[in-house]
Amino acid sequence: MNYKLAFIGFGVVGQGLTEILLEKEDMLAEKYDFHYAVVAISDIMKGSVYDENGLDMEKILDMVKDGKKLDEYPSGVKGMDALTTIKETNADTIIEVTFTDVKTGEPALTHIKTALDAGKNVVSTNKGPVVKQAVDLLEKAKSNNVYYGFEGVVLSGTPVLNLVKHTLAGNKISGFKGILNGTTNYILTRMEEGMPYDDALKKAQELGYAEADPTGDVEGLDALGKVVILTNVVLERKLSWEDVERKGITEITEDDIKKAKEEGKRWKLIGRAEVQSDGSVKAKVWPEKLPLNDPLAGVGEAINALTFNTDELGSVTIVGPGAGKRETGFSLLIDLLEMNRKLGT
Amino acid sequence: MNYKLAFIGFGVVGQGLTEILLEKEDMLAEKYDFHYAVVAISDIMKGSVYDENGLDMEKILDMVKDGKKLDEYPSGVKGMDALTTIKETNADTIIEVTFTDVKTGEPALTHIKTALDAGKNVVSTNKGPVVKQAVDLLEKAKSNNVYYGFEGVVLSGTPVLNLVKHTLAGNKISGFKGILNGTTNYILTRMEEGMPYDDALKKAQELGYAEADPTGDVEGLDALGKVVILTNVVLERKLSWEDVERKGITEITEDDIKKAKEEGKRWKLIGRAEVQSDGSVKAKVWPEKLPLNDPLAGVGEAINALTFNTDELGSVTIVGPGAGKRETGFSLLIDLLEMNRKLGT
Repeated sequence: MNYKLAFIGFGVVGQGLTEILLEKEDMLAEKYDFHYAVVAISDIMKGSVYDENGLDMEKILDMVKDGKKLDEYPSGVKGMDALTTIKETNADTIIEVTFTDVKTGEPALTHIKTALDAGKNVVSTNKGPVVKQAVDLLEKAKSNNVYYGFEGVVLSGTPVLNLVKHTLAGNKISGFKGILNGTTNYILTRMEEGMPYDDALKKAQELGYAEADPTGDVEGLDALGKVVILTNVVLERKLSWEDVERKGITEITEDDIKKAKEEGKRWKLIGRAEVQSDGSVKAKVWPEKLPLNDPLAGVGEAINALTFNTDELGSVTIVGPGAGKRETGFSLLIDLLEMNRKLGT
Repeated sequence: MNYKLAFIGFGVVGQGLTEILLEKEDMLAEKYDFHYAVVAISDIMKGSVYDENGLDMEKILDMVKDGKKLDEYPSGVKGMDALTTIKETNADTIIEVTFTDVKTGEPALTHIKTALDAGKNVVSTNKGPVVKQAVDLLEKAKSNNVYYGFEGVVLSGTPVLNLVKHTLAGNKISGFKGILNGTTNYILTRMEEGMPYDDALKKAQELGYAEADPTGDVEGLDALGKVVILTNVVLERKLSWEDVERKGITEITEDDIKKAKEEGKRWKLIGRAEVQSDGSVKAKVWPEKLPLNDPLAGVGEAINALTFNTDELGSVTIVGPGAGKRETGFSLLIDLLEMNRKLGT
């Protein structure tokens, strides 16, 4: 099928997707019958441009790399803000990749609602809207007969939501546990090798895994958001932020690591949720000492992993990257291809 | 969509699928719009029965459990052999689960070809036809506009083929490595704990993992078949049985295991294939000493695992069961649901 795409926000993730779309254009057309034109971009810093016949995305990438504003693009309509771009262009699919406040979910939440109400598909890597309103937004998409995909919000390009929806279809999933944060897993891997916590954190910051303020990672908040999303979407149970018990990795000592090693175990920050016999959900993010024969124990560095408890297959685990610009950009392509399978047949 | 199913062969796998279909009938209808009737069964030992309006499968299961022949079913046409059932019933989908010679692929190969030529979908857990003619059979299915699924032939119910086709769509896959045989992994897990090879093999036989003649498992032949299938289907390169270097686990000594442990490593029987720069494929089944931070190293017992090398996501690993009656039966449901997604929209 043919799609007319509009980017709302055009930072590294949007640019990453653009590179992939350009490099794989022929393959996507041949293998998946997926054809596209990017008709609009609106970015609060970089400006905006709209051409109903499609933009030259090679040129756009060059301009952005040279620090130029999109208003300098030689043709098209300039100056449209995000909401105008969503509502008034001929785009049928909105790629929502703005910088968004995780707590309020804005401005992404408004962008996504507006797009779905206007009968446009949305793919987005924004966590906020999913944490806050995944179920409502999915219902809105359904009632408007459009697609809303957000594969990238859990493990970036490692397609866990798609895995559940398609590959594990037919199973009843009663719970999950996973390594949902790469930064803390990287730190724990270094500590396992004997590096003190502070040095490991510093190294994670140097490599770009951890922010200058690492609280969100090391206190388990990032993993907690993912537990909420997975519970809402995969276990199909309502759960909010406050319902999850949480402890980060900051209190794990070198001595704890050593002791675990002696027991043939390894510390991992585990996010988990299980449906209880009364139908409620018990969820937590907590450091756990895993035996080495747990598939999650062998997952080192900044790699993520997630084990689903299924009725037909027992435990099924997927291991893959949990971050990265290109990987997160790719997660949007996973959604676009999924959309194409749903709408295109 | 509505499907009319016919079982060719009705051993434990077919019965396993039947149990799942009965237990999950409502869920399959509601969640996936998958509706079915089983119209025919033809089994060389149990006899055959055909009713164009559908059979009472609860009753059939009871009869089989009581050791009764299908000819005792109170209504319907009796005595149709496999090929007649495939060609002359109103079934649109053939579930091919006969006992088949792995080397010749017969009689499954003839059953599958006949069904595809008759414009009928096929789902099958038979390895032989896939090892021998996967590419040709898939082409035949395509040109007849029907579906041919064989998810169960690699890791039983762990959906590796579906993972590649859907969940990893958009990636280029250049190779894989995996623990493709549960019996040998079980034996190595016990040896790691100090049990001698012979005792570990005996235990595997007691648990029903290994056959009385364990050659196929311990010499790596079973894993080799899976390497051939994955190379043909996932890497999309022709490879035959003779092209794969092979060594089993029978020469691994207790001393080897101990030494690996001291190095912080673990022996695993690894099946792998990689596309080379000249486009050829290098494939082997060989015992490898894996470092403990390899996701495959932590996979113990009879569990299987497979790592795909992708261009966008690097290594992505899936870990799950590789055998089991219910799991293998379930693999047929994975195919049926995949078929329904393709044909039903």
